[in-house]
Amino acid sequence: MTDSTGSTPDIEISRRRLLGTVGAAGATGLALGATGGALVQSALSDSPAGSPGSAGSLASLGATRVAFHGEHQAGITDPLQAKGHVLAFDLAPGAGRKEAAALLRRWSDTARRLMAGETAPTADSGIALDAGPSSLTLTFGFGHSFFDRTGLTARRPAALDPLPDFSSDRLDPQRSNGDLWVQIGADDALVAFHALRAVQKDAGEAARVRWQMNGFNRSPGATASPMTARNLMGQVDGTANPRPKDPDFDKRIFVPGAGPGPAEHSWMAGGSYAVVRRIRMLLDDWDKQSLAQQEQVIGRTKATGAPLTGGDEKTALALDKLGPDGKPVIPSNAHARISAPAQNGGAAMLRRPFSYHDGIGPDGTPDAGLLFICWQADPLRGFVPVQRKLDRGDALSEFIRHESSGLYAVPPGPGDGEYVGQRLLEG
Amino acid sequence: MTDSTGSTPDIEISRRRLLGTVGAAGATGLALGATGGALVQSALSDSPAGSPGSAGSLASLGATRVAFHGEHQAGITDPLQAKGHVLAFDLAPGAGRKEAAALLRRWSDTARRLMAGETAPTADSGIALDAGPSSLTLTFGFGHSFFDRTGLTARRPAALDPLPDFSSDRLDPQRSNGDLWVQIGADDALVAFHALRAVQKDAGEAARVRWQMNGFNRSPGATASPMTARNLMGQVDGTANPRPKDPDFDKRIFVPGAGPGPAEHSWMAGGSYAVVRRIRMLLDDWDKQSLAQQEQVIGRTKATGAPLTGGDEKTALALDKLGPDGKPVIPSNAHARISAPAQNGGAAMLRRPFSYHDGIGPDGTPDAGLLFICWQADPLRGFVPVQRKLDRGDALSEFIRHESSGLYAVPPGPGDGEYVGQRLLEG
Repeated sequence: MTDSTGSTPDIEISRRRLLGTVGAAGATGLALGATGGALVQSALSDSPAGSPGSAGSLASLGATRVAFHGEHQAGITDPLQAKGHVLAFDLAPGAGRKEAAALLRRWSDTARRLMAGETAPTADSGIALDAGPSSLTLTFGFGHSFFDRTGLTARRPAALDPLPDFSSDRLDPQRSNGDLWVQIGADDALVAFHALRAVQKDAGEAARVRWQMNGFNRSPGATASPMTARNLMGQVDGTANPRPKDPDFDKRIFVPGAGPGPAEHSWMAGGSYAVVRRIRMLLDDWDKQSLAQQEQVIGRTKATGAPLTGGDEKTALALDKLGPDGKPVIPSNAHARISAPAQNGGAAMLRRPFSYHDGIGPDGTPDAGLLFICWQADPLRGFVPVQRKLDRGDALSEFIRHESSGLYAVPPGPGDGEYVGQRLLEG
Repeated sequence: MTDSTGSTPDIEISRRRLLGTVGAAGATGLALGATGGALVQSALSDSPAGSPGSAGSLASLGATRVAFHGEHQAGITDPLQAKGHVLAFDLAPGAGRKEAAALLRRWSDTARRLMAGETAPTADSGIALDAGPSSLTLTFGFGHSFFDRTGLTARRPAALDPLPDFSSDRLDPQRSNGDLWVQIGADDALVAFHALRAVQKDAGEAARVRWQMNGFNRSPGATASPMTARNLMGQVDGTANPRPKDPDFDKRIFVPGAGPGPAEHSWMAGGSYAVVRRIRMLLDDWDKQSLAQQEQVIGRTKATGAPLTGGDEKTALALDKLGPDGKPVIPSNAHARISAPAQNGGAAMLRRPFSYHDGIGPDGTPDAGLLFICWQADPLRGFVPVQRKLDRGDALSEFIRHESSGLYAVPPGPGDGEYVGQRLLEG
């Protein structure tokens, strides 16, 4: 933990100055965002044409910027970034609502500045100097325990009630839950690490890290065209994700602005609930399966992600189709069948995960898998019913292990001059 | 560890097919490399123009390819990649020269194919499907213990003699040394992980992983122009690195093709020696120093990397310049002074590190720092004299801790049809 009371360096040189036109991009850039944080895009004008493959031709990666203020927090509907950190904090003994409000104010100030490509408000470590914001997002949420510790129990939504136990869970409580949750994503690893350190420094004496995990996704430009991600099992992952253009997307993912809910929960209007699970993949076991066996477990072809019943990745599953042996072509316990929205009363969540790989575990096998993060307006109509079904009969269960779990209320995006969670903490 | 005896999946679809023109790039691409593996560059022709920041405009990242065959192995003079893995293997009990030769043949076949954007020769895991080679490099070396275990003691060069002890070392033997060493780098994390898994699978029953570490560098395009890297302390790092265009570069970095050395070591002609050290940074302590204190420790300004005596990053240190107080402007124990080649009889090494960050260590502070990797024709004229001086009087020592160490003989690049190390194992 950093000590915010000591003397600390203060880099006075502005990252905006180093970055040339990034500052201007904030004013003139093109807003591309849909429902999430708006993407602001500019080319770094002082980058040389460079040789093919040099940074010059890729400078849009660094310059891409996501807005901090908006209807929803950033990091929910924005494209997956190449690097991510998730971490939870517990309030320090003696810290309450006042200290929490001050911390959220500090975090919001830091997030706003770093996402704009500026230095941190205090004692910038310099790690991100020279780099653009690189699609940096910071996202903040509150865990179930936060409300009791801050005297806000009456304002805790029922949607934050602890998730049910699942029979296949092997959860480590020390890496689960927490009063506060922070998600950081960026397309540059040093930009992401810089934000991580700044968030930890901001915590000061008010909160201490409970757990922290690192993740990654494909780098922009590694594939021929933007496509659905693959996970570390080699599977196309996320095919059935709802899309922001779907007519009911907002209703499924974000808490409605007005409705039947009690007024004391109105601070969550426009917010979302994040379920965060560290899902270890038993890769050595998985890799011993033949390709055909793996495809039976998933219900899709590995190379393209198309259902075993034919078509391409986007083709609907023909769940009733039978093979020559009279059995369903997509097996009754195939992961794709069991997790299909059509099989779950239309339950939908927006999955936005990172892969993780922490080397070799104590058991000699890869400590690797998925930092599963999913977003929904109500976990009881998103994650919970799907996981209940998977827990009972998913052929994939044999090859994965849920090792940690957290559920967080992620408040709406802050308005101008507002900090994240202000409507809860000062409402 | 993977079990190579079980049934394993075999993805028959060619990554080249999925990638469109990457296959053709091998024949028609432009060779850009200097002394190292040649870069082969092509655009992915089927990538859409896309919106700004989309993968379409960045596809050269995926398509960039480094040649496996050549005078030197890849991964020495090639640009730093965004993601890296380093790992060491020990030969299994009972495995000797014959099994080692077969393993190097398998590894070479895998490296040649993956670096060309193809699938692994056997049982590809599918993790890198859809992606181009993304500047993937695989580099292989032999540790001191390899030679006794394979009956090749007479052919072990004196340059592989164990490094001297340094007083500030806090080395973990379980994460040091090893019979065989593999370095993997790529600009896409899944491409790098895919190669890591393939290398582990190839080891089969012949060798087991001794240790494995993950690292990262800045993403191509995150900065306005290609520039020297920064480390997790925020320092510009690598300024004084020798450059391939320097007249004595080859002599300092690569073992000469012919010379006074004994004939039994001719298998290393064109090779290089890698010193690999996990250097933990005590970031919480570092961050408590003021910017001025940090700059005194390093001897350079943090923002630009310029010497405290003025100029820019590339300006020579004015080591004799005194301040108003009569003391050297660059302190006598400043890291930049002590490690300056001019202060070390011209000792030079090519530093090509990755940063690492494995979350929070058991002591509650970041388990983060530098996977220091340096290359030289002779460690006694490269790493050793510089580290001896740093060990005695480097102001930075207080903020870093060498936690592991390895020294490896990295043979020359293989000729067509040859595998890495063949001149040792069959010579």
